[in-house]
Amino acid sequence: MSFQPGILEVKLPAWMEDFLLGRVTCIASIRDRMSLVIEAARLNVVQGTGGPFAAAVFETESGKLVSLGVNLVVAGGMSILHAEMLAFALAQKKLGSYDLGRRDLPAHELVTSTEPCAMCFGAVPWSGVSRVITGARDSDARNIGFDEGPKMSTWRSELEKRGISTLCDVEREAAAQVLLDYSLQGGKIYNSREP
Amino acid sequence: MSFQPGILEVKLPAWMEDFLLGRVTCIASIRDRMSLVIEAARLNVVQGTGGPFAAAVFETESGKLVSLGVNLVVAGGMSILHAEMLAFALAQKKLGSYDLGRRDLPAHELVTSTEPCAMCFGAVPWSGVSRVITGARDSDARNIGFDEGPKMSTWRSELEKRGISTLCDVEREAAAQVLLDYSLQGGKIYNSREP
Repeated sequence: MSFQPGILEVKLPAWMEDFLLGRVTCIASIRDRMSLVIEAARLNVVQGTGGPFAAAVFETESGKLVSLGVNLVVAGGMSILHAEMLAFALAQKKLGSYDLGRRDLPAHELVTSTEPCAMCFGAVPWSGVSRVITGARDSDARNIGFDEGPKMSTWRSELEKRGISTLCDVEREAAAQVLLDYSLQGGKIYNSREP
Repeated sequence: MSFQPGILEVKLPAWMEDFLLGRVTCIASIRDRMSLVIEAARLNVVQGTGGPFAAAVFETESGKLVSLGVNLVVAGGMSILHAEMLAFALAQKKLGSYDLGRRDLPAHELVTSTEPCAMCFGAVPWSGVSRVITGARDSDARNIGFDEGPKMSTWRSELEKRGISTLCDVEREAAAQVLLDYSLQGGKIYNSREP
């Protein structure tokens, strides 16, 4: 059939390679893990490759950086390309498993510059991570016009019920500043149809 | 950096091309649209390429088939590869827009063989479709051990609030039969950790 190619591909921005080259690949402190993610979100805007969001998967104990994703909705032309989704997919590709919580693997965590939207929240239990660490709040994203979607207000306890712990507001100010800067420079607010 | 390739790619199963070749590309009736999707879910199991789920994007008025996705979580090694996510991504790639609801495009709808899980539900508002049509219910998937995740019980009204209509239980029996057959033949139930 002519209307659908046999392959779906997403190219990561070229700057990400430079950004990661030469960085320490194990980061002990949670704040430093978040700072790396926030810096990636900032660069995604500066480089003009996407929205002000980034997320990474780390090994919880060692702090080893497994994958880094940035928001590529506009650049990649697909609405599912949120930073968290890319971080999950890249980590799973690297480890050769759709389940980062597989018993023979070390525990993994998601570090995301802003609380996950409804979609990314729903993706968390399937990913296999056992901890979610967030920077800016939903409200910080909503403040600049982004819509986080129909997400349960009890999202943290829903994850906890599934054995996934949460740690929020880590470097929140710095994370929220990236959102604000994006807004001030007139960054595109996509998917902002009001419910 | 060595630990992350610059590209993420997902290959669609080879049988999908044959399946779609020679089919009518515009399908008037909603039941017939669903039947095509259910047949794809069945074939995904028969061909051994994934879980018993399929989803498609159609133009609502013309019934033109825009994209077809199947569950590739195990085959593709990524937890985000639910049928709905692929259907959205493929349709958006085809139309060159991350927003299927863009004003210069005809209205689009998602036809999915089983009610969306928490992640796919959250992905619906970002996709731009204005209607969601489902076959089997959450409970049919749960009956064979699949977990639909922490999804709002009010998911239909949440979509309606955003201008997205829903139509459920279309060809539910046939859709549920595919789930049952998968279970009876011992198909893998992944992501079945209990909350």
